[in-house]
Amino acid sequence: MTQPATPEFLDRLDAALPPGMLRDRRPGELEDPRGRYHGQAAAIACPKTVEEVATVVRLCHEAGVGIVPLGGGTGLVLGQIAYEGPAPVVLSLERMTHIRAVYPQENMIVAEAGAILADVQNAAEEAGRLFPLSLGAEGTCRIGGNLSTNAGGLNVLRYGNARELCLGIEAVLPDGQIFHGLKRLRKDNTGYDIRNLLIGAEGTLGVITAAALRLFPRPERTAAAILVVPSPAAALELLNMAQGIAGEGISAFELISGMGLEFLAETVPDIRQPFETRPEWCVFMDLGVSGASDPDEMLATLFERAFEAGLVSDGVIAQSEAQRQEFWTLRETIPEGNKRIGSISSHDISIPLSRIAAFIPEGIERLSELGDVRVNAFGHLGDGNLHYNVFPAKGRDRSEYENIRAEVKRVVHDLVAEYDGSFSAEHGVGRLKAEDLERYGDPAKLSAMRAIKAALDPKGIMNPGAVLRG
Amino acid sequence: MTQPATPEFLDRLDAALPPGMLRDRRPGELEDPRGRYHGQAAAIACPKTVEEVATVVRLCHEAGVGIVPLGGGTGLVLGQIAYEGPAPVVLSLERMTHIRAVYPQENMIVAEAGAILADVQNAAEEAGRLFPLSLGAEGTCRIGGNLSTNAGGLNVLRYGNARELCLGIEAVLPDGQIFHGLKRLRKDNTGYDIRNLLIGAEGTLGVITAAALRLFPRPERTAAAILVVPSPAAALELLNMAQGIAGEGISAFELISGMGLEFLAETVPDIRQPFETRPEWCVFMDLGVSGASDPDEMLATLFERAFEAGLVSDGVIAQSEAQRQEFWTLRETIPEGNKRIGSISSHDISIPLSRIAAFIPEGIERLSELGDVRVNAFGHLGDGNLHYNVFPAKGRDRSEYENIRAEVKRVVHDLVAEYDGSFSAEHGVGRLKAEDLERYGDPAKLSAMRAIKAALDPKGIMNPGAVLRG
Repeated sequence: MTQPATPEFLDRLDAALPPGMLRDRRPGELEDPRGRYHGQAAAIACPKTVEEVATVVRLCHEAGVGIVPLGGGTGLVLGQIAYEGPAPVVLSLERMTHIRAVYPQENMIVAEAGAILADVQNAAEEAGRLFPLSLGAEGTCRIGGNLSTNAGGLNVLRYGNARELCLGIEAVLPDGQIFHGLKRLRKDNTGYDIRNLLIGAEGTLGVITAAALRLFPRPERTAAAILVVPSPAAALELLNMAQGIAGEGISAFELISGMGLEFLAETVPDIRQPFETRPEWCVFMDLGVSGASDPDEMLATLFERAFEAGLVSDGVIAQSEAQRQEFWTLRETIPEGNKRIGSISSHDISIPLSRIAAFIPEGIERLSELGDVRVNAFGHLGDGNLHYNVFPAKGRDRSEYENIRAEVKRVVHDLVAEYDGSFSAEHGVGRLKAEDLERYGDPAKLSAMRAIKAALDPKGIMNPGAVLRG
Repeated sequence: MTQPATPEFLDRLDAALPPGMLRDRRPGELEDPRGRYHGQAAAIACPKTVEEVATVVRLCHEAGVGIVPLGGGTGLVLGQIAYEGPAPVVLSLERMTHIRAVYPQENMIVAEAGAILADVQNAAEEAGRLFPLSLGAEGTCRIGGNLSTNAGGLNVLRYGNARELCLGIEAVLPDGQIFHGLKRLRKDNTGYDIRNLLIGAEGTLGVITAAALRLFPRPERTAAAILVVPSPAAALELLNMAQGIAGEGISAFELISGMGLEFLAETVPDIRQPFETRPEWCVFMDLGVSGASDPDEMLATLFERAFEAGLVSDGVIAQSEAQRQEFWTLRETIPEGNKRIGSISSHDISIPLSRIAAFIPEGIERLSELGDVRVNAFGHLGDGNLHYNVFPAKGRDRSEYENIRAEVKRVVHDLVAEYDGSFSAEHGVGRLKAEDLERYGDPAKLSAMRAIKAALDPKGIMNPGAVLRG
């Protein structure tokens, strides 16, 4: 258990930092994006340099006071919301937003942890390069938080998740030591992979303060399509066929369900529906290739072959960049439609690719035993990552389902475990899923995690209660 | 310090395993490939299952006896050669060679740690897929060793190193617990990244017993060229230009020095030289693309543009698959040429891409102050990974340079540190570079590594003396 941050401790902290580094919380800050939990903060520290971060951590370490690192605050699993225990010092990276350097020839950018994801994308674009991490919250979330949660998003199929985009980090360890690991090297086999240990640790093993990130050539030509498929199984066969034709050129391959389209029609009617008759399943596919290839020709070839093979029955190929953006908007508005309908329970799961097609209906069947519900299964099919969200029957409200909410989650996560899947594909564990981790995690992995946590953070000050409960 | 394996202990171990699981060492086994060190073994255990591996580890853990995991024995940094301290139990994965499953639709293969790399490649090919890890020792090395050292090789530019090709592992932790982490998931954000901690730990944190590995579509069309460039700087510009034209289609981009060609001409004269006049620098480039693209056209476009820009002065584009293989053979015979000349000291280094061009001559200049030497700098330029090997002047023998060998290594590694590079890009630390790690490693990283080692392996039984010295 951590110690309370006494007024004396806060005075000491204030005195050890340049003036104005501690601030009060702002209205609405540290609220769970889903509105259920409220975070505590004895103070919010906003250091400007890694040395100042180290000062905060060292003082908290000495006093046994908890630290909750804060990026953009958009995390969905309460990793940034310490709602129990003594109020911690919240360490916000909001002032460490500098893009330290861009190396176009190396395809590399070095950004401080507080840089907004969209700003990193823009800095890359100004250098004629692509930083491919892309997700709904990109205008608000910060790169340090993206790394701490190993964020996924829309381009993982082609470019990997946050972990794969990061070649080096600078971080402050739980005792206040600075890890100078900001290497711009693609290959560096000199000891244990401390970088990847901190990535995805959700601030429980230290504070990431800067990162060296990979950039990519910007695809010169793009093309996009929405294709109607008879089933998720057909969608996967289509993906294999598409990879044979377009190789690594497939930037996104997203499953969209008829249910998702129906929710949009109901709640966001100004979004143009791609088909007059609403299909049960379709996929959105985005291609980006180098100048010597023709992505429209690739899509045309794919459509022809897939149609013949019965994998596709209808489709729209974007005729302009505007139409391609319209497809993206459709895909990216699905979560808004879900929000307006109001889910009983949402699940960010992954399943081995070849078992997804069986998983989707089996989940629906098991859930139907609990009550009259609707399922919107959609998302990053190419990665095996589904957002498997459960909603009230038409005309009913989520409040009527409060009594089965826990059971709904349990049924979905139990089935995920049976299918060798993951109960958290891209959102992380935080505090929301710490119990799931205990229930579904491999015992040897959990025991190794606890040993590492105790070794690096013996006082348990780093993001207490997140990932591993005390 | 570990305990000696007494005859009583070996009897107990023998009795705990099915018959025939312990064997004596074979002649020539456990010898350093470079012939300088000799490994010890109290016994060689050859378990067939992960449970048997766990039995060996548990008994060694109880008795404090050291364990050295053994794959194909091809490692170059003495990770498998315990030449000091009490003779350990060598745990050979030679009987765990099973390909457990291939999932073509998932682009995934599950192999036991003892599977020979070439056998994994072949199993992938039989399923119409590519397992891209490729290196000189592929006919002998085992996939568990590749993962433990995070092997690199020839296709890292496009497909990543061993770490990036692995989605899940099964392993035995130092206390004998089995980590069941054989997930076939591209996304799984449920706790600390134990997989990547074991990958690259060179057997010091546990024994990898099986892995779920990524497969890729086989490129349908390939093309290759050797292009003469005026300098390494021009080679890097050429790489950028090539990425603009061929995107991710570039499978290999290798720097070849005139020195390397000269060594081949001297020692392997039956290798056909690509140019009549030996150039100072050239690059070997291999492309593999999907059916809808034309790699020969890409190369022709690249050659034309690069020639105009002064980045390329001459070149040969392979006119047949046979000629492409001839280029590959040329590239892959360079190490043999080096061996026949006999290096004073070899260095597997990486440098931030944009600094390589300055590094190469500065290193040569500094080395020339030590004596009359020749440098062959070659290798995976696209990854920033050079094999920077130092040789005697023409007509002289390496034995004449014994007195400056340590200094040569120091000069190269000091310069690498000045350039923010790595003293071990792909070979690992083992026992050979444990001192370099202490000298050049980030202090906070070293302290975290030591804390993790002590937490997971409190008795220090796993590959004692490797990576971290006692």
